[in-house]
Amino acid sequence: MSRVRVHGFSISLDGFGTGDYQTLEEPFGHIGQRLHQWMFDAGAFGGTVKYGIVNDMLEHSGHRVGATIMGRNMFGPQRGPWQDDDDWKGWWGDNPPYHHPTFVMTHYPHESIPMEGGTTFHFVQGTPQEVLAIAQETAGDLDICIRGGVHTLRDFFREGLVDEAHIVISPVLAGRGERLWDDLDNFNDLYMVAESIGVGNHTHLRVVRRT
Amino acid sequence: MSRVRVHGFSISLDGFGTGDYQTLEEPFGHIGQRLHQWMFDAGAFGGTVKYGIVNDMLEHSGHRVGATIMGRNMFGPQRGPWQDDDDWKGWWGDNPPYHHPTFVMTHYPHESIPMEGGTTFHFVQGTPQEVLAIAQETAGDLDICIRGGVHTLRDFFREGLVDEAHIVISPVLAGRGERLWDDLDNFNDLYMVAESIGVGNHTHLRVVRRT
Repeated sequence: MSRVRVHGFSISLDGFGTGDYQTLEEPFGHIGQRLHQWMFDAGAFGGTVKYGIVNDMLEHSGHRVGATIMGRNMFGPQRGPWQDDDDWKGWWGDNPPYHHPTFVMTHYPHESIPMEGGTTFHFVQGTPQEVLAIAQETAGDLDICIRGGVHTLRDFFREGLVDEAHIVISPVLAGRGERLWDDLDNFNDLYMVAESIGVGNHTHLRVVRRT
Repeated sequence: MSRVRVHGFSISLDGFGTGDYQTLEEPFGHIGQRLHQWMFDAGAFGGTVKYGIVNDMLEHSGHRVGATIMGRNMFGPQRGPWQDDDDWKGWWGDNPPYHHPTFVMTHYPHESIPMEGGTTFHFVQGTPQEVLAIAQETAGDLDICIRGGVHTLRDFFREGLVDEAHIVISPVLAGRGERLWDDLDNFNDLYMVAESIGVGNHTHLRVVRRT
């Protein structure tokens, strides 16, 4: 059965998933890459630090995933209607790391963008449930991965749609930006932290939906 | 040399050290005892769960401590001037768990309150540095423990006065209350998370001052 998963979503010690002022140069705002340094240190992008279970988590993050969902702010720094001369194709170069249909949630229609390596960006409008249904139709038995950003993940959490999430707490304060844990009044009823794994000065939480 | 320590200070996953609306019945507001359940489960108050390093931390939390500092809101639910007929002596019964001079930071003068077991509550006014100096004069070579609440701990963090802190992240969202990590712009420069230790679904952080 198709499950909804979140992998390696990084937040600061004070709960921010991005800093403020996203720009072309700084997709995560003032906090920069500090929330994600662990991922570069580990095996994900050729890093060599052996984190044990964390390397396993990274290695398995793409297994059995048939479609990815992300918010438009994660796809790019644009806001509002798309510009006609905009040839933006995401942050990830010609061959994005998804390798399957990737659904970008936006109120503004946009033609699909096929990329190298199997990724095609589709632009869809709708509630989390509606977009999830579209993704699941594509993915079949395979799982769906919710990539972010903060607002998107929070929307899926709030609707009780996430089966399992791997959240990483990086050892820095961001001070401002977008908080992951805000406005989730029903979180304690819907989810539980199944496990906390400390790796060096980082914390890896496994959050699962209560059954 | 006398050091400044924090032991077992609990916050929610979203960073709140207390809920809102502290009352006589609910010293931690709407979040109740959920932030501190780990402490009751462990050996601190006769609990039997063996948490390994956490039991060690609890067991050692009183070692070599010569004085405790807390904010007035941690001492009691009163606000503003003390009432003449107030015979409040703290939340902890006749024999509080401190067993040494305990300095309550408040703008309102109050006579010292000697308790059983070696605890005496002294009421002092001043900056964190000033109150720390008073406590250190009493404690001599022994260490000082900052107990809380949130505002008090944050003030000591901000002034760079804490040598080592054991912060516990409980696996619940509080949603509202007082956040530990707010308004600490200089935190990343002054402190580092030395270690994250996951114990079940709780996270124990060891925060140390950069040297």
